[in-house]
Amino acid sequence: VTIRYDYRRTERIGLPEAVLCQGKTDEHLRIIVAELMTHPNVPVLFTRMTPSQAEVVRDVAGAALNHDPESATAYLHGQMPDREGAVVVITAGTSDLTVAAEVVRTLQFLGIDSLLIADVGVAGLWRLQERLGELSAADVVVTVAGMDAALASVVGGLVGNPLIAVPTSAGYGAAQQGQTALNAMLVSCAQGVLVTNIDNGFGAACAAARILSRRRVT
Amino acid sequence: VTIRYDYRRTERIGLPEAVLCQGKTDEHLRIIVAELMTHPNVPVLFTRMTPSQAEVVRDVAGAALNHDPESATAYLHGQMPDREGAVVVITAGTSDLTVAAEVVRTLQFLGIDSLLIADVGVAGLWRLQERLGELSAADVVVTVAGMDAALASVVGGLVGNPLIAVPTSAGYGAAQQGQTALNAMLVSCAQGVLVTNIDNGFGAACAAARILSRRRVT
Amino acid sequence: VTIRYDYRRTERIGLPEAVLCQGKTDEHLRIIVAELMTHPNVPVLFTRMTPSQAEVVRDVAGAALNHDPESATAYLHGQMPDREGAVVVITAGTSDLTVAAEVVRTLQFLGIDSLLIADVGVAGLWRLQERLGELSAADVVVTVAGMDAALASVVGGLVGNPLIAVPTSAGYGAAQQGQTALNAMLVSCAQGVLVTNIDNGFGAACAAARILSRRRVT
Amino acid sequence: VTIRYDYRRTERIGLPEAVLCQGKTDEHLRIIVAELMTHPNVPVLFTRMTPSQAEVVRDVAGAALNHDPESATAYLHGQMPDREGAVVVITAGTSDLTVAAEVVRTLQFLGIDSLLIADVGVAGLWRLQERLGELSAADVVVTVAGMDAALASVVGGLVGNPLIAVPTSAGYGAAQQGQTALNAMLVSCAQGVLVTNIDNGFGAACAAARILSRRRVT
Amino acid sequence: VTIRYDYRRTERIGLPEAVLCQGKTDEHLRIIVAELMTHPNVPVLFTRMTPSQAEVVRDVAGAALNHDPESATAYLHGQMPDREGAVVVITAGTSDLTVAAEVVRTLQFLGIDSLLIADVGVAGLWRLQERLGELSAADVVVTVAGMDAALASVVGGLVGNPLIAVPTSAGYGAAQQGQTALNAMLVSCAQGVLVTNIDNGFGAACAAARILSRRRVT
Amino acid sequence: VTIRYDYRRTERIGLPEAVLCQGKTDEHLRIIVAELMTHPNVPVLFTRMTPSQAEVVRDVAGAALNHDPESATAYLHGQMPDREGAVVVITAGTSDLTVAAEVVRTLQFLGIDSLLIADVGVAGLWRLQERLGELSAADVVVTVAGMDAALASVVGGLVGNPLIAVPTSAGYGAAQQGQTALNAMLVSCAQGVLVTNIDNGFGAACAAARILSRRRVT
Amino acid sequence: VTIRYDYRRTERIGLPEAVLCQGKTDEHLRIIVAELMTHPNVPVLFTRMTPSQAEVVRDVAGAALNHDPESATAYLHGQMPDREGAVVVITAGTSDLTVAAEVVRTLQFLGIDSLLIADVGVAGLWRLQERLGELSAADVVVTVAGMDAALASVVGGLVGNPLIAVPTSAGYGAAQQGQTALNAMLVSCAQGVLVTNIDNGFGAACAAARILSRRRVT
Amino acid sequence: VTIRYDYRRTERIGLPEAVLCQGKTDEHLRIIVAELMTHPNVPVLFTRMTPSQAEVVRDVAGAALNHDPESATAYLHGQMPDREGAVVVITAGTSDLTVAAEVVRTLQFLGIDSLLIADVGVAGLWRLQERLGELSAADVVVTVAGMDAALASVVGGLVGNPLIAVPTSAGYGAAQQGQTALNAMLVSCAQGVLVTNIDNGFGAACAAARILSRRRVT
Repeated sequence: VTIRYDYRRTERIGLPEAVLCQGKTDEHLRIIVAELMTHPNVPVLFTRMTPSQAEVVRDVAGAALNHDPESATAYLHGQMPDREGAVVVITAGTSDLTVAAEVVRTLQFLGIDSLLIADVGVAGLWRLQERLGELSAADVVVTVAGMDAALASVVGGLVGNPLIAVPTSAGYGAAQQGQTALNAMLVSCAQGVLVTNIDNGFGAACAAARILSRRRVT
Repeated sequence: VTIRYDYRRTERIGLPEAVLCQGKTDEHLRIIVAELMTHPNVPVLFTRMTPSQAEVVRDVAGAALNHDPESATAYLHGQMPDREGAVVVITAGTSDLTVAAEVVRTLQFLGIDSLLIADVGVAGLWRLQERLGELSAADVVVTVAGMDAALASVVGGLVGNPLIAVPTSAGYGAAQQGQTALNAMLVSCAQGVLVTNIDNGFGAACAAARILSRRRVT
Repeated sequence: VTIRYDYRRTERIGLPEAVLCQGKTDEHLRIIVAELMTHPNVPVLFTRMTPSQAEVVRDVAGAALNHDPESATAYLHGQMPDREGAVVVITAGTSDLTVAAEVVRTLQFLGIDSLLIADVGVAGLWRLQERLGELSAADVVVTVAGMDAALASVVGGLVGNPLIAVPTSAGYGAAQQGQTALNAMLVSCAQGVLVTNIDNGFGAACAAARILSRRRVT
Repeated sequence: VTIRYDYRRTERIGLPEAVLCQGKTDEHLRIIVAELMTHPNVPVLFTRMTPSQAEVVRDVAGAALNHDPESATAYLHGQMPDREGAVVVITAGTSDLTVAAEVVRTLQFLGIDSLLIADVGVAGLWRLQERLGELSAADVVVTVAGMDAALASVVGGLVGNPLIAVPTSAGYGAAQQGQTALNAMLVSCAQGVLVTNIDNGFGAACAAARILSRRRVT
Repeated sequence: VTIRYDYRRTERIGLPEAVLCQGKTDEHLRIIVAELMTHPNVPVLFTRMTPSQAEVVRDVAGAALNHDPESATAYLHGQMPDREGAVVVITAGTSDLTVAAEVVRTLQFLGIDSLLIADVGVAGLWRLQERLGELSAADVVVTVAGMDAALASVVGGLVGNPLIAVPTSAGYGAAQQGQTALNAMLVSCAQGVLVTNIDNGFGAACAAARILSRRRVT
Repeated sequence: VTIRYDYRRTERIGLPEAVLCQGKTDEHLRIIVAELMTHPNVPVLFTRMTPSQAEVVRDVAGAALNHDPESATAYLHGQMPDREGAVVVITAGTSDLTVAAEVVRTLQFLGIDSLLIADVGVAGLWRLQERLGELSAADVVVTVAGMDAALASVVGGLVGNPLIAVPTSAGYGAAQQGQTALNAMLVSCAQGVLVTNIDNGFGAACAAARILSRRRVT
Repeated sequence: VTIRYDYRRTERIGLPEAVLCQGKTDEHLRIIVAELMTHPNVPVLFTRMTPSQAEVVRDVAGAALNHDPESATAYLHGQMPDREGAVVVITAGTSDLTVAAEVVRTLQFLGIDSLLIADVGVAGLWRLQERLGELSAADVVVTVAGMDAALASVVGGLVGNPLIAVPTSAGYGAAQQGQTALNAMLVSCAQGVLVTNIDNGFGAACAAARILSRRRVT
Repeated sequence: VTIRYDYRRTERIGLPEAVLCQGKTDEHLRIIVAELMTHPNVPVLFTRMTPSQAEVVRDVAGAALNHDPESATAYLHGQMPDREGAVVVITAGTSDLTVAAEVVRTLQFLGIDSLLIADVGVAGLWRLQERLGELSAADVVVTVAGMDAALASVVGGLVGNPLIAVPTSAGYGAAQQGQTALNAMLVSCAQGVLVTNIDNGFGAACAAARILSRRRVT
């Protein structure tokens, strides 16, 4: 099997192809990394990489791999150049932290700084209201929330920034592995909320990068 | 066909059998009302009654029928005796008003007064915060909301009263005819939110009556 | 990561924030408990805590943790003050006992006594009819049932108390992990049945506490 | 288009092919009836036939058509010979009566007498308990119920006869057009309940006929 | 916790209460068996019992337990008295054999003999046609099939006996854990097919026993 | 609004772009047809065209439109040149005839002859077995069936030709608007059955044309 | 009933509250418009307004109402001030044009110009490739597509702009009223695609306005 | 238990019965293989065979078993005779490779050569466009893709060959274990795409063999 990594993608759309490790066999990962080692100047992001997959990749790639277990991401051949822009990532509960970590680590890989505001669920609104200034100053707000996902609607009614909502699979029963949070965000009573797939912190970070590419100079 | 109205139900559980008109043929309605006319002292509630069904019933029952088109409810043989207790009904948007009206009219039939606070969706939180005093004073709060149903979570985080959440079928697409609102209420991040079927204003009012039957004398 | 526990919640709504352990990493649990140890007078409830998570928390909290494996709950810093009121918890089968245990343990944490009546499914109605006196005397009845959940409808037709229905994920196939029990309770032919999320014994207990806060003095 | 009516089916399995009118165009009905008129000694049952479809068929078949609007059934060329056996059809609410009527009319077409016991939902158990003698005496009990369908479970726990459960599409919201009743019957806590498609009174009657074909002589 | 086994059920409906082991903790099983040991003359059936659960029960019950791993069933205190009647169990593929084994073992426990015809899927119709004589002679035919479940429709068109269809969870993808087989059986083009829950061999056997209780003496 | 009809498609893939009328406003249809009238030599197929839409199109196109109400198709500017190959279209019931007609009319538009064998459902297998010779001689067999869709499995076990299965939305309840037929065909126990969208006779005909483009010369 | 229009929203988030007409009674619309007439300087947008609802509103509002039937939108009290920024709206087929029109009209109401590129579905890729220059120059690209929604993925792989994907309810069967398009967009193989509710052109335009509020000055 | 392998199937339809190992117990596998060993000239294909199942089968069959772990397939008693025809298998991502391997190995078993083109997802269209010549030359194209499955639509718009689309269960969240890919392929905007069950590489290969049986001699 020959792997065809899309090396031209960054040039075309400003974002590199990433490697989703979930569902890949160790053998397939080895073939991919062997191919990637032929281009040592191209930074590559791995997502949903388990510690044991990191071991497998390190066999081929050596020390070059920067793996972070919390977010399950890894960088090969470093990160991309820094970009301007302020992203705030906000979460409803600690169960959403691993997804928020995927957002933050992907942004860092793309060269974008971010601020994480954790644990500000709407059952205690005062926590959110203390942080409104930081939210308003952001170029992009990424809201990570599971279960009823009410945080996205409340934030969307309080600030006018570009707003990306990431549903998470936290919860049980009627949470339906994140489907309820996803649907609730899609039908948010706040206007102009944009939504990603369940637990897709990577996609939210890429979307933020797309928005920052058109950011206003102030 | 012989109808068996459960005349003993009020004595048993404090709530009378009601007649759900939806899905009944005109012929079946006529048979039911003929039976009910034999007990002129028993107040009966009809729900989801269309204006044309009201016509059919009036043919049999005469002026005795008190029909309200907005809530699609009707009273036959008057209402039940007054009960003590304060219920507040709160809605997120005007699309939820017909369901809220079913709550209010059913409560009225059961002899219970209520206050309706409309149009206080969380996309404009200030509207809700102006009414917190009224909410806190209630013996039961009934929250009627569709789409993301975030109102239930926000109210549940602000007040400690018994809280009944009624999802509505407002919205389109991922609102899934109220299923998203239902699920979001069931997984609300606020504690102790209790939920009824979609658009079931009647059930919420009956549940409020059950709770008031155990109400604290102050 | 900084945790923001909502210490003001009890003051606001009479119920403390609880810690849902499911889906949390050991590292996140440690951070949460370290924060909670700074407030040794605030009783905290943990739910869905596995024995191995209890170990992790005990590393930080020491002997202060009261963990019960059947209900998967734990108390840190003791329980809340006693409250008046009589709650009856009733289950259809032994498969529902762990959820019923979560109701009972949460009530106990909240300072509320309860009576558990187990194994009275409607396929043997006589078992239920023997206990009607105890059911009628309750301030709140919590019905825990899976599969067809017919128990909620039968109880709702027999007594007029506030009635909370907790669907469970018992069963297989068309039981759909509790979705069928949930839907059957939502469309119960008994009036005024209120429903929680699947397996959500914690929520049912909190809702009971909300109702008891308005309890009639007799 | 040539129609191929399975004239040999009665000989093979004791039940004739029936014509489901729903979804058929008037033109297709005309072709079918023209074919059937060539066999004037073969009784045929039509189901889900609207009054306007009955008109169309009468154009071709003349007075031979016996159409009943409540059950939406019609007989062409009379009925089948009488069979021995006692079937009881029992319904939870008046909304289920049209489906129950399809059971009764199909049984009559097949030459089987039946007793209809209507309106004995479990929210008023005394109504059911009054009829236990009649239920126990039946060769087959057909339970027709919508919404939570708890009637099937209660009946199944009280009598040991062959028990066919027909879910109906009565109700709204979480009733999901009968899917909830269907699933609740499939996972009934009573043993040996057998289930048909939603609203399929025809199928229940055919199944009863299959069972009666093996009936005990007493 | 006190267990309330429904000892009177056999007297009432001719079928004893059974113990579904799936979802029960070892501790709950021990309590149940201790209770059952107080009635050594009452035969009890356990279903979905894993080998390790059998170990747990044997600790309490001793040699009295007759456990069969293929069907995951066990008998305590022997079987019920023999009943007359011929049941044929027919399966589409080897993947359905464990469910068919649950039918056969439950029938045996209830005192009913049966014949198992395996591996006669409709992709090779000749295998079915060879067995038509045996099928026609049965008092009840139980068809066990997964995936497209076409076997039930073909059998239903060939014989007129009472016909019970048991969908299985065999297959993957669009088989949807047996939901497709369940639905296909419910909408079978053959008349009078009756359906059980997915993989519910126990229920099919109980239903067969209900039908045999009314069996024709020939 | 400017319409961009893909005139080059036939040259590219041998199939022309078609116009799905369902969901189009009359105004949009008029714009489309005005554009198409500029290429009077390009035959165009319209599908799911109601009689009133045919009127609208005739206003613009005049007599050039060949509309067939049963299949709801229309030809503008004639048909495509004749192609070699024998297609057999087979249906389970008369409810499936309109979809089968869409297959036949689309094939005719594409220049392909076909034979329609109607009403050979598996509840009467003898009807199918009479036609095996015709089925075996076909280059492509298109099986159109709703409900349990067992016909596709039985045909697939009897003949080895290319086999396209078209599920239809016939039936009610658990037929789920054709979803059950679709899933049953996808998990058919016969090997190598290929499936189209529900009611998609057009797609089946196009697929047959793709297959005929590689047909064996005999 | 008193209406509480959120007049402060524009000041807070730069977007005014809009009136979703779907699901509102004529009486409710009249009450809303009467309230809005008290603020003649506040431009208001109505969405999903039928022609007959426009009539109702005109009764109260007079000539002030600018209603557009294709997009089902209306402006009351004019539009908002012009904003800078270039939005391109791109659609796959003519069935998606009404949703695209809602995007364009909402943008116009918000003071934003846009370019509509229609009918460039991926089954004819050349149509899309001709317009790449225009797409790349946009500050925001809004992709409107139903059925398989492949257009969003292809566009997302070709350009790096902020990309909003609007699924539409075009199609039938497995299109599932737009749910398939929604899911396909959420799991797009292109990175950073952001998604709105099905048919939610209004939401896409509001999101574009949020993004433009942070637009780069070039 | 007696196994009835359909030895006559190849003669009837040109394809042998295969053994789906998923869901079979080791004991059942042993019985099947013992039966198959009685016909040493009949080549048999096993699918979804785990390495430990291969061990079990080797115990009975010895060296005769050719097992391939990547595709989870095995051949017993060799392969079938060679057939003419060119199949191209094309995949969107490396996550789809195991399903593609099942296609390739099944084709090889059936005596058919194939070419695998991997990793040509539409987010980098240039990769696909480089291979158009090879695609156009194929007698059958099998497209294997998960998530949004856009590859099937793009390929279907570029070439006119018989096109089989195999959805895979790659992805997470809204990918819904391949249901989204399945639905997107079913409603593809390209004409004449035919679809198999999720992950059903075996079925796609069998369908290709059916098509090749009618292949044009050129």
